[in-house]
Amino acid sequence: MLRGSLSFSIASKVSRVSKISKISRIENLSCRELHSSSYLLRTETDAFGEIEVPDEKYWGAQTQRSYQNFKIGGIREKMPEPVIHAFGILKKAAATVNEANGTLDPKLANAIKQAATEVYEGKLLDHFPLVVFQTGSGTQSNMNANEVISNRAIEILGGKLGSKKPVHPNDHVNLSQSSNDTFPTVMHIAAVTEISNNLLPSLIALRDSLNEKSKEFSSIIKIGRTHLQDATPLTLGQEFSGYVQQLTNGIARVENCLEHLRFLAQGGTAVGTGLNTKKGFPEAIAKEVSKLTGLQFYTAPNKFEALAAHDAIVEASGALNTVAASLFKIANDIRYLGSGPRCGYGELSLPENEPGSSIMPGKVNPTQNEALTMIATQVFGNNSTITFAGASGQFELNVFKPVLISNLLSSIRLLADGSNSFRIHCVDGIKANKEKIDKLLHESLMLVTALNPKIGYDAASKTAKYAHKHGLTLKQSALELGVLSEKEFDEWVRPEKMIGPKD
Amino acid sequence: MLRGSLSFSIASKVSRVSKISKISRIENLSCRELHSSSYLLRTETDAFGEIEVPDEKYWGAQTQRSYQNFKIGGIREKMPEPVIHAFGILKKAAATVNEANGTLDPKLANAIKQAATEVYEGKLLDHFPLVVFQTGSGTQSNMNANEVISNRAIEILGGKLGSKKPVHPNDHVNLSQSSNDTFPTVMHIAAVTEISNNLLPSLIALRDSLNEKSKEFSSIIKIGRTHLQDATPLTLGQEFSGYVQQLTNGIARVENCLEHLRFLAQGGTAVGTGLNTKKGFPEAIAKEVSKLTGLQFYTAPNKFEALAAHDAIVEASGALNTVAASLFKIANDIRYLGSGPRCGYGELSLPENEPGSSIMPGKVNPTQNEALTMIATQVFGNNSTITFAGASGQFELNVFKPVLISNLLSSIRLLADGSNSFRIHCVDGIKANKEKIDKLLHESLMLVTALNPKIGYDAASKTAKYAHKHGLTLKQSALELGVLSEKEFDEWVRPEKMIGPKD
Amino acid sequence: MLRGSLSFSIASKVSRVSKISKISRIENLSCRELHSSSYLLRTETDAFGEIEVPDEKYWGAQTQRSYQNFKIGGIREKMPEPVIHAFGILKKAAATVNEANGTLDPKLANAIKQAATEVYEGKLLDHFPLVVFQTGSGTQSNMNANEVISNRAIEILGGKLGSKKPVHPNDHVNLSQSSNDTFPTVMHIAAVTEISNNLLPSLIALRDSLNEKSKEFSSIIKIGRTHLQDATPLTLGQEFSGYVQQLTNGIARVENCLEHLRFLAQGGTAVGTGLNTKKGFPEAIAKEVSKLTGLQFYTAPNKFEALAAHDAIVEASGALNTVAASLFKIANDIRYLGSGPRCGYGELSLPENEPGSSIMPGKVNPTQNEALTMIATQVFGNNSTITFAGASGQFELNVFKPVLISNLLSSIRLLADGSNSFRIHCVDGIKANKEKIDKLLHESLMLVTALNPKIGYDAASKTAKYAHKHGLTLKQSALELGVLSEKEFDEWVRPEKMIGPKD
Amino acid sequence: MLRGSLSFSIASKVSRVSKISKISRIENLSCRELHSSSYLLRTETDAFGEIEVPDEKYWGAQTQRSYQNFKIGGIREKMPEPVIHAFGILKKAAATVNEANGTLDPKLANAIKQAATEVYEGKLLDHFPLVVFQTGSGTQSNMNANEVISNRAIEILGGKLGSKKPVHPNDHVNLSQSSNDTFPTVMHIAAVTEISNNLLPSLIALRDSLNEKSKEFSSIIKIGRTHLQDATPLTLGQEFSGYVQQLTNGIARVENCLEHLRFLAQGGTAVGTGLNTKKGFPEAIAKEVSKLTGLQFYTAPNKFEALAAHDAIVEASGALNTVAASLFKIANDIRYLGSGPRCGYGELSLPENEPGSSIMPGKVNPTQNEALTMIATQVFGNNSTITFAGASGQFELNVFKPVLISNLLSSIRLLADGSNSFRIHCVDGIKANKEKIDKLLHESLMLVTALNPKIGYDAASKTAKYAHKHGLTLKQSALELGVLSEKEFDEWVRPEKMIGPKD
Repeated sequence: MLRGSLSFSIASKVSRVSKISKISRIENLSCRELHSSSYLLRTETDAFGEIEVPDEKYWGAQTQRSYQNFKIGGIREKMPEPVIHAFGILKKAAATVNEANGTLDPKLANAIKQAATEVYEGKLLDHFPLVVFQTGSGTQSNMNANEVISNRAIEILGGKLGSKKPVHPNDHVNLSQSSNDTFPTVMHIAAVTEISNNLLPSLIALRDSLNEKSKEFSSIIKIGRTHLQDATPLTLGQEFSGYVQQLTNGIARVENCLEHLRFLAQGGTAVGTGLNTKKGFPEAIAKEVSKLTGLQFYTAPNKFEALAAHDAIVEASGALNTVAASLFKIANDIRYLGSGPRCGYGELSLPENEPGSSIMPGKVNPTQNEALTMIATQVFGNNSTITFAGASGQFELNVFKPVLISNLLSSIRLLADGSNSFRIHCVDGIKANKEKIDKLLHESLMLVTALNPKIGYDAASKTAKYAHKHGLTLKQSALELGVLSEKEFDEWVRPEKMIGPKD
Repeated sequence: MLRGSLSFSIASKVSRVSKISKISRIENLSCRELHSSSYLLRTETDAFGEIEVPDEKYWGAQTQRSYQNFKIGGIREKMPEPVIHAFGILKKAAATVNEANGTLDPKLANAIKQAATEVYEGKLLDHFPLVVFQTGSGTQSNMNANEVISNRAIEILGGKLGSKKPVHPNDHVNLSQSSNDTFPTVMHIAAVTEISNNLLPSLIALRDSLNEKSKEFSSIIKIGRTHLQDATPLTLGQEFSGYVQQLTNGIARVENCLEHLRFLAQGGTAVGTGLNTKKGFPEAIAKEVSKLTGLQFYTAPNKFEALAAHDAIVEASGALNTVAASLFKIANDIRYLGSGPRCGYGELSLPENEPGSSIMPGKVNPTQNEALTMIATQVFGNNSTITFAGASGQFELNVFKPVLISNLLSSIRLLADGSNSFRIHCVDGIKANKEKIDKLLHESLMLVTALNPKIGYDAASKTAKYAHKHGLTLKQSALELGVLSEKEFDEWVRPEKMIGPKD
Repeated sequence: MLRGSLSFSIASKVSRVSKISKISRIENLSCRELHSSSYLLRTETDAFGEIEVPDEKYWGAQTQRSYQNFKIGGIREKMPEPVIHAFGILKKAAATVNEANGTLDPKLANAIKQAATEVYEGKLLDHFPLVVFQTGSGTQSNMNANEVISNRAIEILGGKLGSKKPVHPNDHVNLSQSSNDTFPTVMHIAAVTEISNNLLPSLIALRDSLNEKSKEFSSIIKIGRTHLQDATPLTLGQEFSGYVQQLTNGIARVENCLEHLRFLAQGGTAVGTGLNTKKGFPEAIAKEVSKLTGLQFYTAPNKFEALAAHDAIVEASGALNTVAASLFKIANDIRYLGSGPRCGYGELSLPENEPGSSIMPGKVNPTQNEALTMIATQVFGNNSTITFAGASGQFELNVFKPVLISNLLSSIRLLADGSNSFRIHCVDGIKANKEKIDKLLHESLMLVTALNPKIGYDAASKTAKYAHKHGLTLKQSALELGVLSEKEFDEWVRPEKMIGPKD
Repeated sequence: MLRGSLSFSIASKVSRVSKISKISRIENLSCRELHSSSYLLRTETDAFGEIEVPDEKYWGAQTQRSYQNFKIGGIREKMPEPVIHAFGILKKAAATVNEANGTLDPKLANAIKQAATEVYEGKLLDHFPLVVFQTGSGTQSNMNANEVISNRAIEILGGKLGSKKPVHPNDHVNLSQSSNDTFPTVMHIAAVTEISNNLLPSLIALRDSLNEKSKEFSSIIKIGRTHLQDATPLTLGQEFSGYVQQLTNGIARVENCLEHLRFLAQGGTAVGTGLNTKKGFPEAIAKEVSKLTGLQFYTAPNKFEALAAHDAIVEASGALNTVAASLFKIANDIRYLGSGPRCGYGELSLPENEPGSSIMPGKVNPTQNEALTMIATQVFGNNSTITFAGASGQFELNVFKPVLISNLLSSIRLLADGSNSFRIHCVDGIKANKEKIDKLLHESLMLVTALNPKIGYDAASKTAKYAHKHGLTLKQSALELGVLSEKEFDEWVRPEKMIGPKD
């Protein structure tokens, strides 16, 4: 079987050349699929009739129609890979359960399972060309999975692509399923998988790295800042411990949101009733998916909710939104503390990863913090999209599914990658500028607070204001005003005694 | 002691009249405090010196300065009452703990507790004039509470207002505290109290009401709708069960977010170190607040996080945002199902509460649904505000505290009130239009799905398309095409068998 | 006619006491209408029948029903006053036009105009008790206006309240109108009025104040900061000129959005067709409203759009959102530049308006900046609400009108008040700390950029890095390395030559 | 020069094989760059020293460092192509201007211009591997452009890649420029270009298509719906005219926002002062860019604002947000009006583009509307991101530039593509179901409004309510009640007289 070339191939020895103008449009993309003008074509069919598809692709008629009817965006808008992977898992699970309950021939089941495994393993990604902005139920991506798996299974069994024999995309691959329950199911599989395998480990690693720094900095006393103004002291370790706590809480928040994501819609079919399924099918699917992923899944307690609403996605996005708010604060603090080198706070030295300027020698910028704070703003926006889309379900179906999962997966991936990058290229290498920290600490006037119980609030206040007015250190001011002796000052003004409660 | 009139009083017999131009500005409000031009004034002092305040008010110098310096908004922007109440609780708890650990004289403690109780009970609300848009730490509202309680305690003990004797706002009412830990503490007290006492009961009641409807409608079979298009049938009870599940999950989401809100920042003082507190103070406060509110509170495990970040507020807002998304969907569905009376879906009759139009007799509108969906959009916006404000903490302090708690309390109250109103004036009175439901069900072509296993997909498809083209019922079409007998049709096309899985 | 007391009265000498439990609920508000339990009541009627209202109020049956059916929120949620004012304007304009075209009796018209004037002047605000979260068309607030004006006009003409004679709320006050066109009309009147009279003057004044500072600081050379890191110099005046430009553009943005707000929906009546109006009515209303407000209004070119969509509100909110983003940046910069006094950037001194801390003497905080940045986050959230609500119109009507205008007016007022407060209490009093600015400027290593053309990039780079490593000034480093003489350094490293392009 | 394979090549005959583990990670992408493990490498240098890059790529050291340090996201997160194109334009313009003012050797200038043209034409997209989440100034993408153009120019001139001779990336390609002014400049070039060439034509075409439908449907009278409830009639053409007006206004909004986008930051260099530029450079660049793009550009009046803030991007996003709100409403209305075929509103028939269900024969869904409403939610979220990022500038630079332009370009493209797709596959093919429309119109009770002037409001009201209660048509009810004759009814109840104002 000769095939045309769809991507980056330079010379293709096709004997029969045919041009499909509709799919050869040049997309505005850097890494687009370059559609050459020569293909071998194959005829596929669906309820609307015949349509030609590139013969080198496994997809069928419904995929092709969607591809032609939704020329919206480019590579950036393609259905995210974790969704494709999840379809591989789900279709394999369905074949297993259908075989077990006697509705699917074992021979067909095996071929389907083999093809579905290839989908799951990412070997057939080039056969999933559809974009997010298609039908809001994700039906076309479900059919894409059905068509690719059936054609690949047909190939495995020695049949003819497009013949739907012996493996039919609907009757066999989609058996006991509807797009309306499969797509919500893959949404949850994809989200749980990405959160568990990528996001949580990244957040934990970042938290641990910050915790190491908190310990490393535990004896460095520095000036505190409230309202950006000088305040009473704390240790740099204590300051970092706040970041650690934020992430510890954030990890708990993300784990909490998994609770509702672990529920699968599978078994609801068209409207949630489970028409055309056998009893026990939903539970068996959840069990099988758990086995294939190594993660816990359960069947949703109410399938009407599971199809018509995506509150679990909105909830999860809320958790990610909170984590992004934490990271924004942490990254922002650290870049301000590292500002300088001469004219900023200058308490921290961040790793120097790249030249910062072509004009200004020696300039190094907190670029990882910049990337991470940009990521936070992206997650905030994704959360707005998810909120609006999640609220807009109608009757038995929410038809904003692709945009919901696309944004959630974007947030998950960006937070995971961003946390890793920030940890490796910034946090792990942060150093304290002890000299600068110490200098600022002792220049601060807020150490005067320690004198309150010794010389009274009024004298203390006078000392601080006199120092401020005349540009003196606190000690100089106190000595000039004669409110205490140098020995007393040195004994009483001890930042190390100001960093915790009294016994 | 003669006092001037600040609000709505008609005749005040003041002997000494003085005008304060700065506070007599006319605000653009319907129920504003009407500032008459005549007051008795009292001099109060703070570190900035003397300032005159209306003698009929308990507040002091710092409150007055904030009042004059932040003429931003009007009544709508005042610090929310639950925050004032929480200050009453906290200041009482602090007096109790300070007395117990020997740092506060029992006589003073008693007077403070009595005054704080009055604050808690809402008796002194007129003495809290400050707006949300003040200092971002809420310091001025904390001082407002300190000043009101100290002056009221002074009054109780027979002293002179403004003398700060024998009860000083800072040294006694604010003892062991800083604005930086009290304000986060009252934020959490207010949020947990409002959620526990108002929001959760309202959501539960709405859920239960919907559940009653779900049971009531359990045997009414209706057409399902996916993509807004006719689909396979379900019962109206099943449809409502999806709403019930959304709210059951929503209640769990709100309860989940209480976990982090129960942690109190108290004990961190200025920057989180607990400077000027005694060990044990934080735990004792949490215990005392729990006692006073009847709700569980704990001391925050890390005070640096508790002052510098408000992730718990962002998290809680995320939960409310999800609940709002659920309510938007539910209210939207119900108003569409009730659309008509002649030219809409018309499956439900909603209670008629008010005339809908002065032109069109008999017009009644789904006004409760409109109010609830408007509330949802407000909660979505509040969530955006909270996200941005929550992410914007700096170093040892987040200075967006008032806008954070103001928006969270707005979301809580609107969702609580809106749920109650929607339940009482809409859901409880919803009736099913059985006749219309049944008519639509039997007109639908999607019942054809039941024929698939009997006459095959192709003949079924032909039947549906023929009916669609010629405007026939499914039965008419089947009989005209001769694919089955009337008896067969009546036996096979049974919606009641299409609403669940097969055994 | 004796009346009960609805608000703040202490003793009312009512002879007939009656309790209305539904309106005597205690609301959770500081400045709520205190419902005493004693009223004189009056019976009003509408299409739903009879209902009792407090006799001291002018409102009628439909207002009372809404008041009882929408117990959502409290004072904060009341329909904003500018909407009430705009109703006064519109009803007066309508009476004028109806009288002129012969559909309204001059005697009635005069009484209506007098009553409407009282509404416009804010004299009857206590008679507008309804909240934002009512019917989404604002019908109930339109009826509130109709009822209050008709009863007040009846009173003026010596009639009996509630009799609807000789002035009927619908037939006369609402003549030629529908809620569906009046409410959109008052939305636009209120928005244009508030923007023109409050917001724009405030923004212009703030811009001018910043411009004064820009001139005042025009010869102060300071270090620039990009990525928070030291960069090449600029003048403090140049830095402030950026803020001036932001506001100049912002003013243009707000003015641009007025274009579509000036279009009035009046004349569309129920669905946009203008049923029951006379030709010419829309144009005449726009002309009359222009006359009454002194601002330009036009009739909307398409009434279907004007009722069913509120894109002009969304557009205006987008402009306000942009202004808020500008103010966030400006306020943030200024507070960081004023951070310290010892341990921050310390280039600016902000006015000291209030004591900042009860523990730390001398602490003063950038509280105006905090209020303004909080305002910005509120405006961002309002914009989210407006976006969602604006997108959610259905068929011939958008039923999110009250929440749309409520949020827009909130943004307008907060930006106006916040700009004024920030200008008066912060910007006007900003001082440059020339000594600190100069010290930082000369400590900076980025002046090395000036040496590139003299000693080459490599030697310059070496000089900067050597200085950084050994904690030297640039000059010390250059001299130690022997790359140039002191005289050369002083001649070549001249910040004043680095603040503009070369000729 | 032998090169390794970076993308999709199957067999590469490399003689020297070397593995770069850091860039051979498998990315989680469907159309990722497949990094084979074999490359020929080349050494490039920057201020940080040497680094190896794939020899088949033109990029240099700084690009490679960014590539390795920011492994964040995948293909979806790559710097958008319009930015790359704009860099081609800008670098060509800069070479032209630098040559003209005598600072750049004509031979070098020519080679740079040739290379820049290739960038502009999209021939070198594979040499731009960087992602959005890099340094917030976009410095690394600016250096990417400088490095690619210099190496390609070197190649053209017969030099050695990586030698920086005779064309240096900084000294020649970046001459008179800084990342801090080039990146804002390309942001504006990209935005104006995409809006002018793609978005505006798409919106105009959609508006025109809707206008055609409005004309086509101008004589079809239908029932109006307010609050989703039956209301007075209008024509289907009038209903569509509202959509036309929304888009006409939307087009004006988008055009308005171009005003500020046409200002270019170029000439500000590092901090806005224009250090290291010649006078006249900014104006000359704007002129040259105008020439190259055929679109109007001007130099920004204040470069400090142009680097430190991106209010023009926030403003533009606000305009797109408004357009998205319009499209959401339009697409939503149309899908509801097309709902059915039997159990919905059913007034419109939308084109049938794909099979809607594998279970339910004949089911066709409003998939284009679903895609468009999903797009709207994406644009709303992008607007949130842009707002937050736009507000977060600091001092002389906003370091959220890449995420700002990435989101703006996403909104532009999605709205353009979505409008086209919706127009072609939906609007152009919409048909009115006249029979259904007419049936609903005459079943409606709201035509009773026409009887008010004939039989009085009370009798009309009685007629409507009797019809509603007994399920009669209005005519039947009127006849049964005997309030008028059949002839009178037919004469008086004429929907065609209810669709406009009276003369």
